[in-house]
Amino acid sequence: MYWVNLFRQRKVLNLFLYGIAFALIFSPAGLFANEAATDGATHSAASFPLIFLWIAIILMLAKVSALIERVGQPAVLGELLIGVVLGSLYLFGITFFEDIKTNEIIHFLAELGVVILLFQIGIESSVKTMVKVGVPSFLVACVGVILPFAAVYLGGPWLAPGLSSVAYMFLGATMTATSVGITARVLQDLGKAHTAEARTIVGAAVIDDVLGLIILAVVSAIVIQGSIDAATLTIIILKAVAFLGGGIIIGGWLAPRFSKFFSKVHTGVGMKFAVVIFFGLVFAYLAALVGLAPIVGAFAGGLILTPIYFDEFTDPGFVTDLKTAMKEEHVNGALSEKLDNIIHTHSHRHIEEFVQHLGHFLVPIFFVLTGMQVKVSALMDGKVVMMAVLILIVAIITKVLAGWAAGKGMNKLAVGVGMIPRGEVGLIFANMGKSMGVMDDGVFSAMVIVIMATTLITPPMLAAVFRRIQA
Amino acid sequence: MYWVNLFRQRKVLNLFLYGIAFALIFSPAGLFANEAATDGATHSAASFPLIFLWIAIILMLAKVSALIERVGQPAVLGELLIGVVLGSLYLFGITFFEDIKTNEIIHFLAELGVVILLFQIGIESSVKTMVKVGVPSFLVACVGVILPFAAVYLGGPWLAPGLSSVAYMFLGATMTATSVGITARVLQDLGKAHTAEARTIVGAAVIDDVLGLIILAVVSAIVIQGSIDAATLTIIILKAVAFLGGGIIIGGWLAPRFSKFFSKVHTGVGMKFAVVIFFGLVFAYLAALVGLAPIVGAFAGGLILTPIYFDEFTDPGFVTDLKTAMKEEHVNGALSEKLDNIIHTHSHRHIEEFVQHLGHFLVPIFFVLTGMQVKVSALMDGKVVMMAVLILIVAIITKVLAGWAAGKGMNKLAVGVGMIPRGEVGLIFANMGKSMGVMDDGVFSAMVIVIMATTLITPPMLAAVFRRIQA
Repeated sequence: MYWVNLFRQRKVLNLFLYGIAFALIFSPAGLFANEAATDGATHSAASFPLIFLWIAIILMLAKVSALIERVGQPAVLGELLIGVVLGSLYLFGITFFEDIKTNEIIHFLAELGVVILLFQIGIESSVKTMVKVGVPSFLVACVGVILPFAAVYLGGPWLAPGLSSVAYMFLGATMTATSVGITARVLQDLGKAHTAEARTIVGAAVIDDVLGLIILAVVSAIVIQGSIDAATLTIIILKAVAFLGGGIIIGGWLAPRFSKFFSKVHTGVGMKFAVVIFFGLVFAYLAALVGLAPIVGAFAGGLILTPIYFDEFTDPGFVTDLKTAMKEEHVNGALSEKLDNIIHTHSHRHIEEFVQHLGHFLVPIFFVLTGMQVKVSALMDGKVVMMAVLILIVAIITKVLAGWAAGKGMNKLAVGVGMIPRGEVGLIFANMGKSMGVMDDGVFSAMVIVIMATTLITPPMLAAVFRRIQA
Repeated sequence: MYWVNLFRQRKVLNLFLYGIAFALIFSPAGLFANEAATDGATHSAASFPLIFLWIAIILMLAKVSALIERVGQPAVLGELLIGVVLGSLYLFGITFFEDIKTNEIIHFLAELGVVILLFQIGIESSVKTMVKVGVPSFLVACVGVILPFAAVYLGGPWLAPGLSSVAYMFLGATMTATSVGITARVLQDLGKAHTAEARTIVGAAVIDDVLGLIILAVVSAIVIQGSIDAATLTIIILKAVAFLGGGIIIGGWLAPRFSKFFSKVHTGVGMKFAVVIFFGLVFAYLAALVGLAPIVGAFAGGLILTPIYFDEFTDPGFVTDLKTAMKEEHVNGALSEKLDNIIHTHSHRHIEEFVQHLGHFLVPIFFVLTGMQVKVSALMDGKVVMMAVLILIVAIITKVLAGWAAGKGMNKLAVGVGMIPRGEVGLIFANMGKSMGVMDDGVFSAMVIVIMATTLITPPMLAAVFRRIQA
């Protein structure tokens, strides 16, 4: 077993080297890029073709990095690592990828990518599912937010000495996140997506995202305005809650009517997708308008969208073909039932697939770009690594303790371990802290190490805990 | 019939007004946009949420504009018109959409959109189909390029007096284009996609695009360098031909090996799509590198991709489900054949659907943005309209004459009429001429009027000609 893993890991290493070789091949082309770009088609096209090339390379490397799944790790970790490699190539004199770090268009695509990701997670969940998982999820989420925040904020001076009070707040906020994506994905990989523990974890992770982002709004306000009084705090919380509550209620009322109206205008696939995207992007915009992160809005926008709202649009092509074949051949009995089931499932999955397809294009850009912002030089710093290890220990313990809030009838350890990965939401927090000047490169790098470590630790731990339940 | 159409047109008008009302509702929100944007997630996020809102509005209005299909016009015309409306709102004091015209991110998305569109058309064609339609297509394409170019270039001083020789060249080049998208779409709408005429038109339109873009490369060089000598001309043509020929041969050799190699790395949908996108974007980049427009590269990249190259990747979800159901229920006979057929067709359409889904998101941005660049004030100019009408007449006559090159056994008028629409490629030419400073606003607006008119005229004319064939 050990040797198999080692072999696999060498294969991963080989492909990382492939990636670097690849980069080198394209590096001279980069020199000609400015010449080529003068032929671009629109007035500001200066470097559009070069950006096309960047995206192509990022996508291929991101997918190659999915090899990391073969050693039991989630693909997102591979994307982060490939980003770290690309971002460090300048240390070896390869500067072809340097401009990606500051390119506004790439940053926009990354931001759009993470909005699409949270929108997708929102679509796959529903208001109903969230209500169903109910009390235990809510308790786990609350404890899972309060404990890490309190521990890191109050314990900050011991964990990472010499920072400002605001910085400890931001560190604490970063540690409150739970990655819905990673947790759900790991549970799916383990075939445990339908256990009570799994539903509680995912429910808690969803609520946790929302709670954590309210905290983030509060913390951001404190950073921007220096301090926050009770009235402002109340207004921020009220705005956030009003947007989420109001958005879900009004949006939930509006969505079926809106899509019904536009299905009368046109029943085509393009119109269906435009309505879907409209909800995601407008909610992302409105969230920003009340001071929340766009991703919270996108998630809420996804939550209120239900596949049945889109039943009046034209079926996907294969559904039409399948229906015709069934009619022509007078299919009935068990087969008819099964085929009807396939039609039902996949015509309802049509909008999810569309958003997923956009995600295939955009989401890796976010994770690779995030990885690129890790400064390897900072990782050489013993203080940074020390800080990361200490915060990591607190991050793990506090989330495992939160699992105890799940109450009777559940494996509390499984729930707690499932809450460990901070993933994309944690990275967004860290990014924000960095862009606001609260975290310096060292602290940011430590945060990214912690997040990568929680992501790395969870799959094998969760697998082990579920194995113990069965034994 | 007349009243029905009038009613329909009023419905279209109503929806245009809806669109404007919509814009007004969101206009105040635009005032808050800067405030909202400060909460964006990355360092340069200044107006990302606002751009999300812009995209959402552009997509919805573009799809609503598809109502124009109900009066027999292609959807692209609706998108152009909605663009003209949005771009003219400033005349009524509504400036919410003004910044779109110059926003670099929107321009990038538009450019990516048209790259994706041509890539999609390339994927739906194949090197084989192009060879098959052969001689008549080639002749029609050549005559359809030479005639309009010669007529507009030589007749320029009469059609649009007072411009430079270079400007007449650009006008001529713009008129050589034939829109594959519009022609193919119209033929599909008429249910005539498989007639000999249809295949010849589409084949000629494809070859025409390539010829036209070689001309464009030549004309651009003349504009940039002032003049062009035989050696430079030869090099430009050789570079273009070498890229296209070499790209298709080397790319055609590489594509199956490349996708087989990466299917071993990962068989997932994400990897399949990354390989597909990689070809589109890298070819777009390489085209720019040899001085061709990125869209030519994307088209070539699409041409060499064949669905069977992707057979080793995981089936789409519904195919897997259908296969399982067929096995469990021991389906055989006629039904089995039909279901196998559905599986075959739709697993092969999987990559086309992916690219289409990206297109649903990106392509309307290109056409709406193009429409936005029409200056209505220029349309008020009698000289501009006069110029447009004269060029339009030449544009129609020359392409109809080109149809005669199709030779025996075909309805030559149908082929000629099918070549009239200049569509997206013509718009790209016009855009380029404008961005290079060769066309002023008046000439550009005249060109856009001509292109819109050819787009508008073709569907009813083509329908009438095909109706006459049947009668």
